[in-house]
Amino acid sequence: MAKNKKLWAGRFKSGTDTTVEQFTTSLHFDKRLYRYDIIGSIAHVQMLANCKIISGRESNQIVRGLQEILKEFETGKFKFNPTDEDIHMSIEKQLKEKIGVPAGKMHTARSRNDQVILDLRLYLRDVVKDLDRLIKELQTAFINLAEKNRSIIMPGFTHLQHAQPVLFSHHLLAYFEMFDRDHDRLNEIYQRINIMPLGAGALAGTSFPIDRNNVARQLGFPAISKNSIDTVSDRDFVIEFLSCAAITMLHLSRFAEELVLWSTTEFGFIEIADAFCTGSSIMPQKKNPDVAELLRGKTGRVYGNLIALLTILKGLPLSYNRDLQEDKEPLFDTIDTLTSSLTVLTKMLPGIKVNKDRMRLMAELGYSIATDIADYLTKKGIPFRQAHEIVGKLVRYCEANQKALDELPFEVFNQFSPLFAKDIYQVFDIQQSIDSRDIPGGTATRQVKLAIAKAKRRIKKN
Amino acid sequence: MAKNKKLWAGRFKSGTDTTVEQFTTSLHFDKRLYRYDIIGSIAHVQMLANCKIISGRESNQIVRGLQEILKEFETGKFKFNPTDEDIHMSIEKQLKEKIGVPAGKMHTARSRNDQVILDLRLYLRDVVKDLDRLIKELQTAFINLAEKNRSIIMPGFTHLQHAQPVLFSHHLLAYFEMFDRDHDRLNEIYQRINIMPLGAGALAGTSFPIDRNNVARQLGFPAISKNSIDTVSDRDFVIEFLSCAAITMLHLSRFAEELVLWSTTEFGFIEIADAFCTGSSIMPQKKNPDVAELLRGKTGRVYGNLIALLTILKGLPLSYNRDLQEDKEPLFDTIDTLTSSLTVLTKMLPGIKVNKDRMRLMAELGYSIATDIADYLTKKGIPFRQAHEIVGKLVRYCEANQKALDELPFEVFNQFSPLFAKDIYQVFDIQQSIDSRDIPGGTATRQVKLAIAKAKRRIKKN
Amino acid sequence: MAKNKKLWAGRFKSGTDTTVEQFTTSLHFDKRLYRYDIIGSIAHVQMLANCKIISGRESNQIVRGLQEILKEFETGKFKFNPTDEDIHMSIEKQLKEKIGVPAGKMHTARSRNDQVILDLRLYLRDVVKDLDRLIKELQTAFINLAEKNRSIIMPGFTHLQHAQPVLFSHHLLAYFEMFDRDHDRLNEIYQRINIMPLGAGALAGTSFPIDRNNVARQLGFPAISKNSIDTVSDRDFVIEFLSCAAITMLHLSRFAEELVLWSTTEFGFIEIADAFCTGSSIMPQKKNPDVAELLRGKTGRVYGNLIALLTILKGLPLSYNRDLQEDKEPLFDTIDTLTSSLTVLTKMLPGIKVNKDRMRLMAELGYSIATDIADYLTKKGIPFRQAHEIVGKLVRYCEANQKALDELPFEVFNQFSPLFAKDIYQVFDIQQSIDSRDIPGGTATRQVKLAIAKAKRRIKKN
Amino acid sequence: MAKNKKLWAGRFKSGTDTTVEQFTTSLHFDKRLYRYDIIGSIAHVQMLANCKIISGRESNQIVRGLQEILKEFETGKFKFNPTDEDIHMSIEKQLKEKIGVPAGKMHTARSRNDQVILDLRLYLRDVVKDLDRLIKELQTAFINLAEKNRSIIMPGFTHLQHAQPVLFSHHLLAYFEMFDRDHDRLNEIYQRINIMPLGAGALAGTSFPIDRNNVARQLGFPAISKNSIDTVSDRDFVIEFLSCAAITMLHLSRFAEELVLWSTTEFGFIEIADAFCTGSSIMPQKKNPDVAELLRGKTGRVYGNLIALLTILKGLPLSYNRDLQEDKEPLFDTIDTLTSSLTVLTKMLPGIKVNKDRMRLMAELGYSIATDIADYLTKKGIPFRQAHEIVGKLVRYCEANQKALDELPFEVFNQFSPLFAKDIYQVFDIQQSIDSRDIPGGTATRQVKLAIAKAKRRIKKN
Repeated sequence: MAKNKKLWAGRFKSGTDTTVEQFTTSLHFDKRLYRYDIIGSIAHVQMLANCKIISGRESNQIVRGLQEILKEFETGKFKFNPTDEDIHMSIEKQLKEKIGVPAGKMHTARSRNDQVILDLRLYLRDVVKDLDRLIKELQTAFINLAEKNRSIIMPGFTHLQHAQPVLFSHHLLAYFEMFDRDHDRLNEIYQRINIMPLGAGALAGTSFPIDRNNVARQLGFPAISKNSIDTVSDRDFVIEFLSCAAITMLHLSRFAEELVLWSTTEFGFIEIADAFCTGSSIMPQKKNPDVAELLRGKTGRVYGNLIALLTILKGLPLSYNRDLQEDKEPLFDTIDTLTSSLTVLTKMLPGIKVNKDRMRLMAELGYSIATDIADYLTKKGIPFRQAHEIVGKLVRYCEANQKALDELPFEVFNQFSPLFAKDIYQVFDIQQSIDSRDIPGGTATRQVKLAIAKAKRRIKKN
Repeated sequence: MAKNKKLWAGRFKSGTDTTVEQFTTSLHFDKRLYRYDIIGSIAHVQMLANCKIISGRESNQIVRGLQEILKEFETGKFKFNPTDEDIHMSIEKQLKEKIGVPAGKMHTARSRNDQVILDLRLYLRDVVKDLDRLIKELQTAFINLAEKNRSIIMPGFTHLQHAQPVLFSHHLLAYFEMFDRDHDRLNEIYQRINIMPLGAGALAGTSFPIDRNNVARQLGFPAISKNSIDTVSDRDFVIEFLSCAAITMLHLSRFAEELVLWSTTEFGFIEIADAFCTGSSIMPQKKNPDVAELLRGKTGRVYGNLIALLTILKGLPLSYNRDLQEDKEPLFDTIDTLTSSLTVLTKMLPGIKVNKDRMRLMAELGYSIATDIADYLTKKGIPFRQAHEIVGKLVRYCEANQKALDELPFEVFNQFSPLFAKDIYQVFDIQQSIDSRDIPGGTATRQVKLAIAKAKRRIKKN
Repeated sequence: MAKNKKLWAGRFKSGTDTTVEQFTTSLHFDKRLYRYDIIGSIAHVQMLANCKIISGRESNQIVRGLQEILKEFETGKFKFNPTDEDIHMSIEKQLKEKIGVPAGKMHTARSRNDQVILDLRLYLRDVVKDLDRLIKELQTAFINLAEKNRSIIMPGFTHLQHAQPVLFSHHLLAYFEMFDRDHDRLNEIYQRINIMPLGAGALAGTSFPIDRNNVARQLGFPAISKNSIDTVSDRDFVIEFLSCAAITMLHLSRFAEELVLWSTTEFGFIEIADAFCTGSSIMPQKKNPDVAELLRGKTGRVYGNLIALLTILKGLPLSYNRDLQEDKEPLFDTIDTLTSSLTVLTKMLPGIKVNKDRMRLMAELGYSIATDIADYLTKKGIPFRQAHEIVGKLVRYCEANQKALDELPFEVFNQFSPLFAKDIYQVFDIQQSIDSRDIPGGTATRQVKLAIAKAKRRIKKN
Repeated sequence: MAKNKKLWAGRFKSGTDTTVEQFTTSLHFDKRLYRYDIIGSIAHVQMLANCKIISGRESNQIVRGLQEILKEFETGKFKFNPTDEDIHMSIEKQLKEKIGVPAGKMHTARSRNDQVILDLRLYLRDVVKDLDRLIKELQTAFINLAEKNRSIIMPGFTHLQHAQPVLFSHHLLAYFEMFDRDHDRLNEIYQRINIMPLGAGALAGTSFPIDRNNVARQLGFPAISKNSIDTVSDRDFVIEFLSCAAITMLHLSRFAEELVLWSTTEFGFIEIADAFCTGSSIMPQKKNPDVAELLRGKTGRVYGNLIALLTILKGLPLSYNRDLQEDKEPLFDTIDTLTSSLTVLTKMLPGIKVNKDRMRLMAELGYSIATDIADYLTKKGIPFRQAHEIVGKLVRYCEANQKALDELPFEVFNQFSPLFAKDIYQVFDIQQSIDSRDIPGGTATRQVKLAIAKAKRRIKKN
């Protein structure tokens, strides 16, 4: 049986089984909320004094005590009692040791059920701001990489087959757009995180004449929660965050996959800096794109965290149930994973060396200009579907005769369609092919320049 | 080998294997997009004429043909060729049969890659609006049920144990809040759905001088997509939708769980109308809350659909890959599930009979007034933590002596604390307990009345 | 209100709401169980007669009626009433129309709860056997492909970087092993599927003196279920099946990914037959590895199906709950997906053209022989870790001087270590490198020949 | 840049970025494998000496060094360098410090790719044995609880509605069956874990003349892996384990749900010991079934871990990729969760107090005897379906007249069917109802006694 007297133990005949203590404790993970727990308690206590629920003197004692404890945390001096149930109880007990009886007034008009949600919302507000900044930095790194390599041509892929030539910078800007949506989403869920829950009590509100808006103002919340039962039962904001994080990791995983592909000997499109690769214990020549692989792999754990929380919440009756304690580890792990993933990629991007000749060579190989030829015929008046078929047959002819399209003599072209004129050979200039896609969002140099300029302005506004 | 000549078959030496046809076809599920495919094609073709890429006469022919086809669909007369690859090819072929050669001009400056995204975005716009309306109707049903049963008292639960008495209407309004967040989310993702993708072509844009904004205006899109590669690679909006749907199902599952619980003989809180229950093949007495159980169970499939799409996208290199075709079935299944789930619950709510006496009896049982006693003591000046302990011991005493709290003689109270006065017995009035929680979001009658009034106003604004 | 009188409607005052009928019906998907439902009923009824619970005459009437119905199904003549709840009720009603009153005796001593489990177990037994055969056929196709291309050399990859040269056939046999584990797993879960549930009744057993073992014998089950409550609550065997299917799809997805990679212009390792590729609506040259992409993509839906069922079952109290009806669609979709995926890949494999020169060229490129050099030094007596470092430096030297390892003059080797002798140049023979890995499971030609021979024997035993 | 020189750094111009070190390190979690890493290395080194690849003297030095290091670990004296990449490198470096140059010979003919799989398999073998023992202990606790409360009657539930009376012990034995399947599965996957991977090298085998079977014998593996590429790429055994763990957690979650339900004031079926409950920070009366809630909630994290690994593996090309490093944390977390969950429930079960009178009262309430009446009529000769309808109407009559079935005068029965005789009132004895279900697997006392006896024998055999 446990030695550590629980603050709620009045009605219990026997202490908690130690196995149960270990099974139920959350201290080892919720301690990361210490700062928010203290800040929240200070605001709560000051409001209590303001509303004359406790005296100003008591409030001052508590606040001073909490500030000391905060300092202890920040200087690494706080002594944890591993048998404490959670960070809230740890702090309240320490406060009691510091200031004695008045510590017992801190929890007036409050329950752990609304307290933990306050802590979590305060914490997640900061997290979302940090992550949004990291996303912005990553977007900037993408813009920089695009700008630095603006005119490099690569084969554009669909089905991982050469489709049409594109600018490498245009390809990179696709990621700018993805992360921009991530930014938008983070800002939307921020609104739903930024709501003050205290006052919901255990589930029903409180009979003390508290001023919820006062606490909200102190802590910078623009709104208070609207239904006390929902307040303590709701974890939507955690799931929403995990879902956003899953999409961001998805984006990272797609780029990571491309980095891995592009770094292969076969592709040879890029080289990742030594400082961002690791070697092999057995093969002396190996230089592996581990960071990219781990970015890709870590996507799995974030998906897993999302499904964990969805599972936990499914079919859970109102209001608070202890299952909800299981929200924190998946959340914290996701935050840490996303933070380190964004950081490491942002640092890695500038050191990527682009093998421009190889990329261009591959863009010219194959038949990636075929659509341009079909467009050429279409512009001469025949339906696109017919032009498509003619060029399809041309390609089949080339394959059978092992020729490139631009090696075919004019007679051959003519055989396939009388609409071909000598100017057909101009179509084979891939730079021109690219620049012909001169519509908003297209890969033409002019459009990509515009897109980079706009991206820079957008990032400033974000 | 397949008989059905493919429109892209020019470069192929041999036809498609029939197993492959069956494996790759999407017609059996993407046919539900027919209307959007036709509407999108009409706008595209009119723009092409507008930009002089095709002639006005050709455009008119195509548009008339498409309108006829639309009518065929809507009157159930459209003849599907089951070996067609997808709805786009089905329609284009039918058009060709109708108007001949000019049909081949429809696909100018377009690819299936941007076409399918257009169809999906058009479709999902309508879906989101429909679902938002269904959510609003469900919210209204919750308000009505709450208003009808406004003053009914029930035990409020935490850990499924009696916690504090609350108004049943207050409990119902917690669901109003959940669905309101669902509404908010749907409206946010609507913004990211409502973007015109056409012009992205296969991935690089197009060399035809199209006017993307013209198409956007015709179809009521406020914006066009910004990067052609991203446009054809992106399924964020599908995942976001699935993620919102998962949260809405989660909410439904929580209420469904409560319906199941409340309908048990043991709880006896409510009775579901016969028309919303089913019986047993063997047990003649059975009346089962099947609808609630299926609402709860169907949550699983929506979670599964979300994880399906997250898995599909993970690590997928840009731009379009055929894996993306697998986005539709999970999406469509989710839409159907969510639609029928919202509908059936909205219809079921008004018929729920609330057993008000049973609820109140249970709210009075047990010790759910204990917090009020602790608050009583706290208001007399001792720290809450101390009050909590005194009441905890009182409860233990009651348990040992098999008494209810309000059966204890005053002497006993006095023994546990000299602060108890005769007015302690007033605390046992659960109506008063409820009404004492008179802070915004609390369960007091006054607050719940306000909350209902506000909910009505909010629903009007939505 | 629905017109279709329910067989359990005795205790109901009002009929079922039509929305509810649509929401709760399972007929559209469980009709695929018709054969198993009929076979199961026949066995049940014959046992009832055997145990004198019904008369032989009644039994004969019922059996004949059921056989007629089975014939109707198989000739497509069975008329479904779309408002029937499920396949069981459809058949029972049809039986009643055929033979009148005695039809009502069929359900004696049985409940839908144990009936549906019987149907599912009978069905899944057949499915597992079919899938096991398909896996075996796929394994055979892998063996054949390996044998046909036995001596082709490819670069072995770790981290998608060239690691060490291996035989292409050795690489293919890795998949043989994966599918062999799939085979093992299917056979293990078959044991847990192959259990006769009838007699569990609704949940408690039955008061009729039935003979469960008789039914088991008739239907070829080696065992009967041991606890009636567990029997109707348990869906472990479905989850196990989904979990096995998820792993098999995972294996397919890994090979699909390799097919996609190997088919790129950059890799150029293989060519997939035209009949297993599809084209583009816009790009005339495209030949896309769609089948491989869809194999990869469909993995997502099977994962989703698994998570769906896990979610459904989580926290479900005993015994039967209607949520369990949601087990069938994920299961059926998984079976169909797995069946078509295995089939299409088996058909596709023989047509894969391997570009042997390209593979070998890439295996010789780079420094994939570096481990062999380190091994060479180690065999001369220095610790492997030191040898590794020397070769690492050699590689760095080569990179800086843009040389291949085998282009280095002997002096350079000597500079890096005096242990190098002239025979070092023999190490650069990649055929010899491969054949040096002559341990069980290694890539040496001798080992791969053995492995193929053993694989053939194993497949025969399976 | 990092200070800690990597053992593979020969070919690298620059050190690893510190962000990268933190991002890629696995030491903080894979250190739990230390014992298995050392044991595996000892076996490997002794085999190397045995095969004359290194000398006996070198082998002895290494083994002695490793044994010292093992002791350091077990006495908590091992000094970790936090910048080490992983446990393998930590140990090799420490060995080098201890014994100098010969340490460099340990890694001969081995790669981290096969080494880590060996460690994982050795570890998981022990884990599976431990978990199997814990499952057995839990099964025993269920048998004991069932035996202690063997004759207690409870309402059996379907759809959480009273269905038919059952023995509480029969209900408990349903869980015995579930955990017995878990036991079976663990033993099956044990066979696939119990395979010796060393010798696969990086992916291709090794050129040293090692004896893989010697290592297998030393470490007690009955078989060696069959294909080197598969050996380093395969994580099936991890996924299988996670999948088994998910099903076991599912079982725990179902029982946890029942504990929560049964502990409600409304059900009042059981009381959980104080030592296995916790209290509330605000509500002094609360005694919450936290352990059960957490058992239910923790199911989510295990599902998440499974989906994490499935995601990681999906579409991963062969052979080893760094993504695979992400297998360990979900695995370890699952092991810890399952271990503590099984342990705490086993300890909690004996303290559960069953409220036998309440259970019986609820079993008698309602119409749970209705099937028995239908059976009664059926035994008198009318078809079950007709009997079902008659009793359905009886129930409706009772509901309308607010009567229990056994309160109806005989005349009423007779009105509904002339087959009713006076002996109908004997049917209302629920003990007899239970005992009438006297078929194998049924709830009759005789059957449950047999089932308990068999369960005891089975557990002994396991």
